[in-house]
Amino acid sequence: MMYLPWLATASAALFFPVHALYPLNELAKTPQMGWNNWNSFGCDVDEELLISATEKISQYGLRDAGYQYIVLDDCWSNGRSSNGTLQANTTRFPNGMAEVADRIHKEGFKFGMYSSAGTSTCARYAGSLNYEHQDAQTFAGWGVDYLKYDNCYNEGQSGSPLITYERYKKMSDALNSTGRPILYSMCNWGEDYPWKWAQTVANSWRISGDIYDSFNRPDARCPCSGNEEYNCALAGFHCSAMNILNKVSHYTDKGVPHAWNDLDALEVGNGGMTDDEYKTHFTMWAAVKSALLMGNDLDRLSARDLSILNNPAIIALNQDPRGTSAVRVWRHDVDDVDRYGQGEIQMWSGQLSGGDYFVALLNAGNGSREMNAMADDIFYDAGAEGTSEESTMEWTIHDLWANRMPEDVAQALIDGNSTQAASLNVTSYYFNATETSYEDGLASNNTLLLGRPVGTLRAKGMITAEVPRHGIMAYRLRLAGRGLRKRDEL
Amino acid sequence: MMYLPWLATASAALFFPVHALYPLNELAKTPQMGWNNWNSFGCDVDEELLISATEKISQYGLRDAGYQYIVLDDCWSNGRSSNGTLQANTTRFPNGMAEVADRIHKEGFKFGMYSSAGTSTCARYAGSLNYEHQDAQTFAGWGVDYLKYDNCYNEGQSGSPLITYERYKKMSDALNSTGRPILYSMCNWGEDYPWKWAQTVANSWRISGDIYDSFNRPDARCPCSGNEEYNCALAGFHCSAMNILNKVSHYTDKGVPHAWNDLDALEVGNGGMTDDEYKTHFTMWAAVKSALLMGNDLDRLSARDLSILNNPAIIALNQDPRGTSAVRVWRHDVDDVDRYGQGEIQMWSGQLSGGDYFVALLNAGNGSREMNAMADDIFYDAGAEGTSEESTMEWTIHDLWANRMPEDVAQALIDGNSTQAASLNVTSYYFNATETSYEDGLASNNTLLLGRPVGTLRAKGMITAEVPRHGIMAYRLRLAGRGLRKRDEL
Amino acid sequence: MMYLPWLATASAALFFPVHALYPLNELAKTPQMGWNNWNSFGCDVDEELLISATEKISQYGLRDAGYQYIVLDDCWSNGRSSNGTLQANTTRFPNGMAEVADRIHKEGFKFGMYSSAGTSTCARYAGSLNYEHQDAQTFAGWGVDYLKYDNCYNEGQSGSPLITYERYKKMSDALNSTGRPILYSMCNWGEDYPWKWAQTVANSWRISGDIYDSFNRPDARCPCSGNEEYNCALAGFHCSAMNILNKVSHYTDKGVPHAWNDLDALEVGNGGMTDDEYKTHFTMWAAVKSALLMGNDLDRLSARDLSILNNPAIIALNQDPRGTSAVRVWRHDVDDVDRYGQGEIQMWSGQLSGGDYFVALLNAGNGSREMNAMADDIFYDAGAEGTSEESTMEWTIHDLWANRMPEDVAQALIDGNSTQAASLNVTSYYFNATETSYEDGLASNNTLLLGRPVGTLRAKGMITAEVPRHGIMAYRLRLAGRGLRKRDEL
Amino acid sequence: MMYLPWLATASAALFFPVHALYPLNELAKTPQMGWNNWNSFGCDVDEELLISATEKISQYGLRDAGYQYIVLDDCWSNGRSSNGTLQANTTRFPNGMAEVADRIHKEGFKFGMYSSAGTSTCARYAGSLNYEHQDAQTFAGWGVDYLKYDNCYNEGQSGSPLITYERYKKMSDALNSTGRPILYSMCNWGEDYPWKWAQTVANSWRISGDIYDSFNRPDARCPCSGNEEYNCALAGFHCSAMNILNKVSHYTDKGVPHAWNDLDALEVGNGGMTDDEYKTHFTMWAAVKSALLMGNDLDRLSARDLSILNNPAIIALNQDPRGTSAVRVWRHDVDDVDRYGQGEIQMWSGQLSGGDYFVALLNAGNGSREMNAMADDIFYDAGAEGTSEESTMEWTIHDLWANRMPEDVAQALIDGNSTQAASLNVTSYYFNATETSYEDGLASNNTLLLGRPVGTLRAKGMITAEVPRHGIMAYRLRLAGRGLRKRDEL
Repeated sequence: MMYLPWLATASAALFFPVHALYPLNELAKTPQMGWNNWNSFGCDVDEELLISATEKISQYGLRDAGYQYIVLDDCWSNGRSSNGTLQANTTRFPNGMAEVADRIHKEGFKFGMYSSAGTSTCARYAGSLNYEHQDAQTFAGWGVDYLKYDNCYNEGQSGSPLITYERYKKMSDALNSTGRPILYSMCNWGEDYPWKWAQTVANSWRISGDIYDSFNRPDARCPCSGNEEYNCALAGFHCSAMNILNKVSHYTDKGVPHAWNDLDALEVGNGGMTDDEYKTHFTMWAAVKSALLMGNDLDRLSARDLSILNNPAIIALNQDPRGTSAVRVWRHDVDDVDRYGQGEIQMWSGQLSGGDYFVALLNAGNGSREMNAMADDIFYDAGAEGTSEESTMEWTIHDLWANRMPEDVAQALIDGNSTQAASLNVTSYYFNATETSYEDGLASNNTLLLGRPVGTLRAKGMITAEVPRHGIMAYRLRLAGRGLRKRDEL
Repeated sequence: MMYLPWLATASAALFFPVHALYPLNELAKTPQMGWNNWNSFGCDVDEELLISATEKISQYGLRDAGYQYIVLDDCWSNGRSSNGTLQANTTRFPNGMAEVADRIHKEGFKFGMYSSAGTSTCARYAGSLNYEHQDAQTFAGWGVDYLKYDNCYNEGQSGSPLITYERYKKMSDALNSTGRPILYSMCNWGEDYPWKWAQTVANSWRISGDIYDSFNRPDARCPCSGNEEYNCALAGFHCSAMNILNKVSHYTDKGVPHAWNDLDALEVGNGGMTDDEYKTHFTMWAAVKSALLMGNDLDRLSARDLSILNNPAIIALNQDPRGTSAVRVWRHDVDDVDRYGQGEIQMWSGQLSGGDYFVALLNAGNGSREMNAMADDIFYDAGAEGTSEESTMEWTIHDLWANRMPEDVAQALIDGNSTQAASLNVTSYYFNATETSYEDGLASNNTLLLGRPVGTLRAKGMITAEVPRHGIMAYRLRLAGRGLRKRDEL
Repeated sequence: MMYLPWLATASAALFFPVHALYPLNELAKTPQMGWNNWNSFGCDVDEELLISATEKISQYGLRDAGYQYIVLDDCWSNGRSSNGTLQANTTRFPNGMAEVADRIHKEGFKFGMYSSAGTSTCARYAGSLNYEHQDAQTFAGWGVDYLKYDNCYNEGQSGSPLITYERYKKMSDALNSTGRPILYSMCNWGEDYPWKWAQTVANSWRISGDIYDSFNRPDARCPCSGNEEYNCALAGFHCSAMNILNKVSHYTDKGVPHAWNDLDALEVGNGGMTDDEYKTHFTMWAAVKSALLMGNDLDRLSARDLSILNNPAIIALNQDPRGTSAVRVWRHDVDDVDRYGQGEIQMWSGQLSGGDYFVALLNAGNGSREMNAMADDIFYDAGAEGTSEESTMEWTIHDLWANRMPEDVAQALIDGNSTQAASLNVTSYYFNATETSYEDGLASNNTLLLGRPVGTLRAKGMITAEVPRHGIMAYRLRLAGRGLRKRDEL
Repeated sequence: MMYLPWLATASAALFFPVHALYPLNELAKTPQMGWNNWNSFGCDVDEELLISATEKISQYGLRDAGYQYIVLDDCWSNGRSSNGTLQANTTRFPNGMAEVADRIHKEGFKFGMYSSAGTSTCARYAGSLNYEHQDAQTFAGWGVDYLKYDNCYNEGQSGSPLITYERYKKMSDALNSTGRPILYSMCNWGEDYPWKWAQTVANSWRISGDIYDSFNRPDARCPCSGNEEYNCALAGFHCSAMNILNKVSHYTDKGVPHAWNDLDALEVGNGGMTDDEYKTHFTMWAAVKSALLMGNDLDRLSARDLSILNNPAIIALNQDPRGTSAVRVWRHDVDDVDRYGQGEIQMWSGQLSGGDYFVALLNAGNGSREMNAMADDIFYDAGAEGTSEESTMEWTIHDLWANRMPEDVAQALIDGNSTQAASLNVTSYYFNATETSYEDGLASNNTLLLGRPVGTLRAKGMITAEVPRHGIMAYRLRLAGRGLRKRDEL
């Protein structure tokens, strides 16, 4: 049989808490959220970039939306000292990393750093292979809360699950032995099927080569698609959002609380996609329970993009306490392809806490189209071929993007115009997870998290929607007539 | 050259008993039959569920039809005691597992349990990796007769035949060393080609990810089809009956007495397929010599479904003493596809004991159609390209579903209405393997096992039949004019 | 760069003898020829079968045509004695194996036997894994000259070149250490790319699952075709002649003197193919330098089939001292497919000793057709894209099947009618390699080996021929005007 | 994240020098250039061939164009002496290898030799497996500057990155320990993904089986194309130029200074391709930063071919100090296929030092056609989906083939007619890298290196060109209005 999430798809009566034997640590009970500098800044890093990021993220309300980890990526290093200790670049980090950590902590964030399970990092700074324990101690000593651990220059130590498992487990053990809780984010690009074995070793694992800021353009350097999606000999980079989403579709069940698929940092705000494309990208990253790391330049964030990143109804999918990924129920090629030859449509659904369901109609065709989701398909995992009890019930449909923050409100946040922000009642538009967890918010039926009711799905019925080109319609279904009560309590 | 079954396809004159060097033990001379709770109950297990199952299975005549093993799946555990001994969940199994085994044995059944060749089971209870000998002793001490041994949380110990062989062999050796005969059912989902090496290690091996209750719907989480069927990098789950059947078509010869391909537990009775689909599913599982474990909720079994599961003429295919799987002679795509885009037709045949042959016309197209099986194709394994002597003979065709138990008879069994059952002469409709083995029944030409004669296949002729959508016509061929004599004795 | 045969394709001026560092032994300078009982008799073996085979093979002139090895396949064993020595089945081999070897040797043949690099043979007799040295000594003691070494029940010891190399090298070393020259014929079905590494270990290696007596019918149990041809995860069995031929097309260069690709024993004479199909099968096995083991029942050999197996002009391709395989120059799908959906045409060419060339037009379409071979393509390996000097020369075309032995002559041989044989001058129709080696026969331009001149290929010209359904036209090209002189001596 | 070149694709502002931790040595800062005898002479090697080559290469101006390494391939050996030292063939190299090295050095060249990481070389001379240190000392003692290290007869030591890494690392370490700088050129045909791990071990690695002198003809012996391109189970040989180019497209980023992809030696001058095809072949080998080894017979070099090999504007792409490969931006199949069924078009672009860009329109269709390159696509790696600043700028387009050396000038060089050469002012046509490095030449805007201005690419504009059958149009883009100033200095 398969991993727990399969079990979780059985009817509620069958579900009961299990002995969570495998977690590495208590972190990432839901997918980690935060910001990583790589997609926007690459090697151009210094202390001020990080501190500035914490300030903007706070100001924009994103910290309170849950984006908690500030992750410094490659190029921070100055090599090792004579005793082998990693040294920060003193030009870029004149006060040292411990000081950086302190400042980040004081802003209410957690601090993430980067190394590689190789002799060098990808940008050819000192890597941690064969220095795992010494480096873990260094990171812990600096107050680091998170480690992104890359895969470059691994000296041929890949090609089978066990060799990769052992290489990554060394750092896992080293981090654990520090005594400091450090979220361990594996970045071996999905090589050697980490979803088969990383649950006992790490809090998350990348599943693909690096994302780039394109919705669906194929690139020769990210060659795996089709049958190669799940058995990729060359992870590469320049993977589009749709490429990565299709990869995860085959092993959505492998992410479980404390151990998640990581589809790479978000491109929202970097300019390469349309508003609809970014909404699709963000919705699906949230729905499949990917780690959610923003990858943008916060100084250039537009109001439109902010109102994507802070949509509480979408983030609530990601932080749902049930921890069950949405699944791709169907996928069809369509004829209206774009200039890259791409065109497809998909339907996704998933189970949420409290008996709610997620549904998405994703249109990756080249024009707007009407799409349908049938009840038998939506409740597919609760019973194949229309056998689920759920498909015979009536559900209220909530549109998860209907309450998107208005542009003037988002702009006020970005402008830091507190007068205007107050007059617009900005705080009413976003969910403050620092005060109330998503779990509690959902339990108390916070309307920010539920979306706006827009209709009813009848027994054996269908949801129909016009979906824009490269866009998505995303819904939460709640049992009709049962309002704010949790189904578990019925 | 290839495994013994190839040899077995040579003409009768060439066949003689061989030294059975490899068997692990004396169990599963024919494929094991029984019931497993997972497909219907998942983790919702307790003592009463198992006892209730034994009662129903007895009452419905299924125990005497051969369903002998009651297999408890995942979630029965409460972890390990301080000395490392596995503990049953005392709420669910208040009398302990030894008592459960006793009660099951007293009902005339054998008792199967579950663990995983990993640090945890799939539902994250304690796994047996590195505890093989201790756990085998525990199971033997409880009176366990069967172990399903899963593959979750294996710490990267997969990816090549040898690493998997060694992991599973540890439990094989441990079970053997207990001195108790325990049927060893490997469940590593077909990873690392168990059909290449498991014959010396286990009594059966799963060949795919978990089945689900769908005839042929593709699911992204069971991605391997086409060329990936026999070299699957991601076993997954939610594999349809047709998906699994097509997988086994490539290595039907690898199952041999005491060591069988396992296509996963049956979905018959769970509601996701039509009557024709369930008949196809059951017929083919039997014909390819899969382990036959029912996976239904016995309290909700319909008369129609019972009359599938208890068809003696089909079970006799599975329990045939010759132990030769049917083979897929041809497969063609057809144009009338269903809404999942699936549509194909297949012809299977196989050699049975006593010189009989099995033939099936399987219609997985989207509508009823006339299908043909030519003698040259039916007797294909006895001589390629029409060279077999068999293709020049005349055969009586027996329809294996023609004597299906009438619905009122099956209903009487389910209702436990003994008066009605007696008046309907229920026992005349099913074969009592507790009294007479299938081998003896076949040897004595028990008509329940042979099906109903419906025509003749002439030399170089053809069988033609109308086959319903997603349905099957299944036949036993017996040399014409030779009635009830065994061909071996001619 | 690649293996020597590549070098051999350069122009004659570049070619000179190299240091043959790798050969295992002095055997199989050209591909071994002989007879193996498996295809026709399977396990039904005994001393008389072998002795009878030697008598027929002698009588039919096939021994003198080069079929030298009498190979006993599986099922000869009675297990091991108390000290671990392999024992022959005393019922079937009442005089012991040493006596069998003696009798075979006295008939002028060499004796081959069989074991498996596993704990059991495929028919489950004792295998030689972990008994390599003891068994090699036993075989040498019996006077064995040849070992076919199979792959069943290998305990998971496959899946990477090194693990398989080491398993097979053990027997290689063991055979060498006996001091007796024993031809070592690896039979691991092409698993783990033996053509990459077996040249230093063995005299030949099987490249596929078992052949069956069909020209081109696909079978689910031999699934690898297309891209899977050269990277086959499941060797299987029931591989058609065309399936195996297409497999070898990708690594024809890997067979070199003393170390050959083995396409499995011939099916000629077993009845499953037409005369044209058998001619194609035999021609191509010879041309790609496969081991040539007959696999027929000699008591049922027809005159037509005998005149295929004894065609000296075809055998001379196989035994050519240059040892360069023909290569597939092109392959095209055609529309006139047969009922198995198969249809393709191919052109092959290859370099022979003395500057001659081989050309074949192979029609695997479903009807007769005219086919062409252009000079630029024929001399492709001597210079890509028409750059070869050879393509500008004029060549005499010799048809290699034009001098096929007449049916009445072949029948006289089969009948053993010495009077008639003498009157028909039978011996003039076949080449006696016992008296004169193929190398010497070719050097002296023995006309039996050259085929019949049928035309001229002009500079930059084309050969055109009508090729029957599933048939072949096979030619030897010799530089025009240079008659019987060797081109090397020009 | 991925390797450094990814970083290098970020905007200039992000780029700064990194700690080059991995280089094996200081050699091959840009791809090595030279000549190798194999493609033209195979095993027909001797001292005079090499010395003659140095003389011709000098005379033709190719040494000063950068072709510095004279590489002797296989077949030079006479085995090992009694103490295991490799011996040169004394007939072919009567003065010994040290003398050969001396003479080559005196001509201003460096000397390369050959061995194999196997027990034999491909032509079956003594290989260096298990003799790494002894042989490295021998080579260093002879004054060798370069080692091509092949893959034949490796005794099954392949099939996973680590086993191959370790085999090749042994020679890497051995060469390093000699103290002599020896460029280490791995030739394992791309097996086991050398681009993933060889950067710390070698200066270059072959990525495919051997090239042959064909632009795009498929050969069964080089089977990997399509999805198999980047995961090739059978490297083979007879790989066409387009086959190899398509292979590298997936990992162009993996070549970095001191460690390069090697697409195999050039076929320019060997006669199998048209002038357009050779221009395409040479342009792309240069643009993707392949090692550039001529593989021709210098005595038969035509003026046309010389003017390809010595084009300074193309070589400057290869020797660009930035060291960033061009990337394939798009690839489309076209309908006008040739007789091999091949037809496709491609656009490539890449970043060069000084802010310049490379663009190529490659027409592998069967007829001349107009092709377009859009600014958004050209500057793709500087910003996906048209987000790059570069796409909004104006650029001068320089045609890199417009200044190709006139045929009479090239003929004068070949003829060694110094009077004519002087009158034609030959030296003005080629770049003398012995005097001025390409880096310095580019820094000083040497017009030989820049090509001829032929137009302007406007903001968001397009380059349009008529491209001949199997031909290429190749351009350097330079920011308009900024003439000869380096963009980095703006």
